[in-house]
Amino acid sequence: MLGAIEAGGTKFVLAVSDDEFNILERQSIPTTTPEQTFEKVFEFFDQYDVSAIGIGSFGPIDVNIKSETYGYITSTPKTAWENTDFIGVMKERYSVPMGWTTDVNAAALGELTYGAAKGKESCLYLTVGTGVGGGAVIKGEPLEGFGHPEMGHILVRKHPEDHFEGHCPYHGDCLEGLAAGPAVEKRYGKKAQELTNNEQVWEIEAHYLAQALMSYTLTLSPEKIILGGGVMKQAQLFPLIRDKFIRLMNDYVQTPDMEEYIVSPQLKDDAGITGCLILAQRAL
Amino acid sequence: MLGAIEAGGTKFVLAVSDDEFNILERQSIPTTTPEQTFEKVFEFFDQYDVSAIGIGSFGPIDVNIKSETYGYITSTPKTAWENTDFIGVMKERYSVPMGWTTDVNAAALGELTYGAAKGKESCLYLTVGTGVGGGAVIKGEPLEGFGHPEMGHILVRKHPEDHFEGHCPYHGDCLEGLAAGPAVEKRYGKKAQELTNNEQVWEIEAHYLAQALMSYTLTLSPEKIILGGGVMKQAQLFPLIRDKFIRLMNDYVQTPDMEEYIVSPQLKDDAGITGCLILAQRAL
Ligand SMILES: Nc1ncnc2c1ncn2[C@@H]1O[C@H](COP(=O)(O)OP(=O)(O)O)[C@@H](O)[C@H]1O
Ligand SMILES: Nc1ncnc2c1ncn2[C@@H]1O[C@H](COP(=O)(O)OP(=O)(O)O)[C@@H](O)[C@H]1O
Ligand SMILES: [Zn+2]
Ligand SMILES: [Zn+2]
Repeated sequence: MLGAIEAGGTKFVLAVSDDEFNILERQSIPTTTPEQTFEKVFEFFDQYDVSAIGIGSFGPIDVNIKSETYGYITSTPKTAWENTDFIGVMKERYSVPMGWTTDVNAAALGELTYGAAKGKESCLYLTVGTGVGGGAVIKGEPLEGFGHPEMGHILVRKHPEDHFEGHCPYHGDCLEGLAAGPAVEKRYGKKAQELTNNEQVWEIEAHYLAQALMSYTLTLSPEKIILGGGVMKQAQLFPLIRDKFIRLMNDYVQTPDMEEYIVSPQLKDDAGITGCLILAQRAL
Repeated sequence: MLGAIEAGGTKFVLAVSDDEFNILERQSIPTTTPEQTFEKVFEFFDQYDVSAIGIGSFGPIDVNIKSETYGYITSTPKTAWENTDFIGVMKERYSVPMGWTTDVNAAALGELTYGAAKGKESCLYLTVGTGVGGGAVIKGEPLEGFGHPEMGHILVRKHPEDHFEGHCPYHGDCLEGLAAGPAVEKRYGKKAQELTNNEQVWEIEAHYLAQALMSYTLTLSPEKIILGGGVMKQAQLFPLIRDKFIRLMNDYVQTPDMEEYIVSPQLKDDAGITGCLILAQRAL
């Protein structure tokens, strides 16, 4: 039996599955303090005899196996979780192998194995929600180096009609600062989901996302780009982004066909937890 | 005995080494037509009995093993080389395993194994010369997906004092269009090497390179960034780039120490050919 935790900033999803990743039991708990949350995690996993646990966590987290704080959630804006030794706490309770990466790397791994990027060796998963977060799998492995990607914070060029200064506390008008859900809300004084019929909103949003996808494509060359998160529920964004992406790239690189290249998640809300189960198996 | 070809747009470097990558013989030939060039390549390798050949080539090239044109130089501006079946031509003459990637991926692999990134599992190698080209090794493997990185063409924000429109035939003012050697030359009417004492030149150059390095760092998280190529001979660029990089990142990500993170190649002109020899051995 495999165990998995998709540790999000709002909720944790806990699951156990058989060796083919069929989910046998699943529970969702709110992310409160580490103490309360881990108590619920223990209650859940104490019921089962898992041989490994895979964890995909909100971050920033330390993924560097050589580091002293490997397995920690480090400098997160959710201050109660700052410097939390996630893997340490889990290992103390369960002495089984554990997989550890970001929530978005886990989602990319899930989509690569069973979803939109099935049969591929690489894909990028970008969530556009409360923040903008990206993960990737390259040659079958979650993308990590000295740390993990934070690609939601790359710099983009301002849209000429956009006078919003951006809301990223670190960079102001980085991608997340200009294109995350709360940026849309601050720019227009309304939630993104209430602006469906305002064309300028999606024109500006696509302007930023297309630039970012160009940058990721030229840097990583992923076989698929999967766009998830609340803001991407606005399906009209997909053709706008594809169109702008093509114009920006100007045929410089022969990418896969657009309809196949820039797509929605296929596993929907299960991408992350599925990726975590795969991580668990790989940790064995 | 291992064979290697560093196939550059100006010259090819050919080499053979023992199994520890000690170069036994090396020759440099000009890149003319494929016919003439391959004749010289054959003359060289016909003298030896190599068990594998590693090739790092200028591009764009097809690195997708599933593609029908795997091993080709594809749509290069060097028109004589367009659609050249590099690996096909080589395999017809020598039936040994062959490794194949970009010249910059090979340089990254060389630096990772014996140079500035020795002991690491990832690094980025960026050359700033006639063009801007980037390669990387991630978890020990050359970075490839649907194709190979073309990270020299990402978009950057214009420097407020820069009125040069950029010279990239595809994108105008992408990184290469604004920061490659010929861009400096067009902007000032003098070659970059003649502008050593003009502070504005390097201020603008560092402005673009620091932005690009921020984007690569946030996307790839490499353990080292190695900057080579003719323009980087201007050593005063390094502190300028590091300084701007720090200001742009604004402590968002805990990168390695700057002096250790953004560095010169250690293998100098041998990075590429060394990487090609390693590719040869890996092909065995
Ligand atoms: N249908 C929708 N259309 C546009 N924006 C939406 C939609 N649903 C949620 N959002 C926006 O997405 C953000 C929340 O992102 P979500 O991906 O749901 O959660 P989180 O990023 O916190 O995991 C909010 O800013 C919200 O306004
Ligand atoms: N010492 C130097 N300082 C600044 N620029 C230089 C220097 N040497 C060469 N360059 C510039 O680098 C470019 C050539 O790049 P180089 O890396 O030498 O070759 P290539 O990219 O063709 O392999 C030219 O634009 C040249 O002006
Ligand atoms: Zn930011
Ligand atoms: Zn370009």
